[in-house]
Amino acid sequence: MGDPTGIGPEIIVRAWLDPIVHQVCRPVVIGRPVIFRRAAEMIGAKFSVIELDSLSRSDTLESIRREGDEHSPPPLLCFVAGSEAADEATKPCIDARGGAAAHDALVVAANAAIAGDLDAIVTAPLHKVALHEAGHDWPGHTELLAHLCGVDQYAMMLYLPPGKSDRGGPAGLGVVHVTLHMALREVFQHLRVDAIFEKIELAQIAFTKLRRSLGLPPCPALAVAALNPHAGEGGLFGDEESRLIVPAVDRAIERGWNVVGPLSVDTLMPAAVAGKYDAVIAMYHDQGHIALKLLDMFDAVNITLGIPIIRTSVAHGTAHDIAWQGRARASGMVQAILTAARLGVPANVD
Amino acid sequence: MGDPTGIGPEIIVRAWLDPIVHQVCRPVVIGRPVIFRRAAEMIGAKFSVIELDSLSRSDTLESIRREGDEHSPPPLLCFVAGSEAADEATKPCIDARGGAAAHDALVVAANAAIAGDLDAIVTAPLHKVALHEAGHDWPGHTELLAHLCGVDQYAMMLYLPPGKSDRGGPAGLGVVHVTLHMALREVFQHLRVDAIFEKIELAQIAFTKLRRSLGLPPCPALAVAALNPHAGEGGLFGDEESRLIVPAVDRAIERGWNVVGPLSVDTLMPAAVAGKYDAVIAMYHDQGHIALKLLDMFDAVNITLGIPIIRTSVAHGTAHDIAWQGRARASGMVQAILTAARLGVPANVD
Repeated sequence: MGDPTGIGPEIIVRAWLDPIVHQVCRPVVIGRPVIFRRAAEMIGAKFSVIELDSLSRSDTLESIRREGDEHSPPPLLCFVAGSEAADEATKPCIDARGGAAAHDALVVAANAAIAGDLDAIVTAPLHKVALHEAGHDWPGHTELLAHLCGVDQYAMMLYLPPGKSDRGGPAGLGVVHVTLHMALREVFQHLRVDAIFEKIELAQIAFTKLRRSLGLPPCPALAVAALNPHAGEGGLFGDEESRLIVPAVDRAIERGWNVVGPLSVDTLMPAAVAGKYDAVIAMYHDQGHIALKLLDMFDAVNITLGIPIIRTSVAHGTAHDIAWQGRARASGMVQAILTAARLGVPANVD
Repeated sequence: MGDPTGIGPEIIVRAWLDPIVHQVCRPVVIGRPVIFRRAAEMIGAKFSVIELDSLSRSDTLESIRREGDEHSPPPLLCFVAGSEAADEATKPCIDARGGAAAHDALVVAANAAIAGDLDAIVTAPLHKVALHEAGHDWPGHTELLAHLCGVDQYAMMLYLPPGKSDRGGPAGLGVVHVTLHMALREVFQHLRVDAIFEKIELAQIAFTKLRRSLGLPPCPALAVAALNPHAGEGGLFGDEESRLIVPAVDRAIERGWNVVGPLSVDTLMPAAVAGKYDAVIAMYHDQGHIALKLLDMFDAVNITLGIPIIRTSVAHGTAHDIAWQGRARASGMVQAILTAARLGVPANVD
């Protein structure tokens, strides 16, 4: 559900109305049913919201779905999670009850995925300040998920799915960040050969999967961004390229992967957007985010790599400025669901 | 002329063929005539190259121009600068003779502009390594120009001129960098309140001029980028925003300028591209370059701010991969000339 004060409920309801969502997966919403009824009413969606008390893949669930097939659109299945207090948190502002609701829905979803009751989870946006005000001191969904999964080597990949021209190749375009939510000044101490190699590896695994699910040869083309301008201009502008990035790239090449770098990020990004690379490994937050947000904020998907469950998310925020006005676009949510479904294809399919 | 081993001579000759260039200014090329004859021959341009031995605004020059008016296209006027050795430097590779030629042409042009013989100068690309190999140890044109002008407070502005949708407002989009050609690690010690304010001021001056020349109200909208992700997330990710950027922005606002910031650069850039701001003040090289190079490398213009003469340049490099093949696009050179002409409109015109 994400934070109900934002556009999450609206884009979930809009995505539910999109037939492609039901073709690629069997979705269940996790959160507060009353909020989805309110969102459905706002946009005039004519489906009922059915409350579930179990996420197990039971016959009952299937019969409800089959019942739904007769109608159009199918009823929205909502597994109840979070406290009743959240039901009133639909005013578009920072609200601790909204932060608590996003947290509670994520914990239920993650645990169900870890238990195997769900093949993948998709999250709507939360607001960090509301999360903190609710007493959950995480920078975002990603870090909380890694904690719930007991993983400390993970990465966030921003992903533009394929389908639009001029933004990546046939498998889309991913950007994996070596460092993320920290002061720029802190980045230097977090750039180590191992950390860079690990992100290359996570991108390699994710795009091998994505390419297979799209029927493409499973050998991703990866490019690693330099840290310094002009890729360090041969050592004139810093030595992190030769000291840290080159050894990580060399190690990846020794594995037989198709990896180049370090490349100057301002020329690398246009090449990646033109379809030359499946994924870019960026050294810090803005290095990746500037390009991706320029291309399309609302269609981008956020994928958590390195955790044992599949999790995607919209890449945009709660957008309080347009929340609960019926003006939100659901394309990012639909793409996040499609991407989760692709990543959820069992490996033995091919 | 720039470095003759690159695409400079070709894009100069192609720009000379564009009638708009002769409508907005009276151009003179500075460099080696034989190189322009070779470039003209390569692309099949039918004009003659006339060698000038003076740049003064003489009657002779005007009579040649008038003579040119009868033909189409007009003869290319070339003031001879640089050593004969450069005449053979038209193989697309790094060549010290090419670096020397670019240096020599720039020195002649800058001194003529300082003396008042030229209203503005426009430069074709040089190659830094060739410049260094020729014994001129400058990071680029900009720094050499500042030295020739005896100025130590200057800035490079990358500028997308107006005219294309989805890339800036009616006056185009500029990005001024507070720091430029240095290791990312060095940036922190160069970010001072004064340095940031000074770049805001240079952007304010340049866009006031550009807006006037375009017939727009002369009150530019400027946005200052944050250094850290999420603009420091309220102090969680670094303190440069509150310590350095806020005081510089406040000082600019006290002057009555329309300045906002610090704003998270990944959301600021899409807003600027959508036309919300005339210029963005970026804290470091890649912060500005990633966005601009994604939008259009070949149409971008590089403007040197803070020097007493007007100087624009193409924003792309020597492009050895396509040089001397007749495949170069001159749109960046034409835009650089148009922009120089706009900036060269005397202030007492309005």
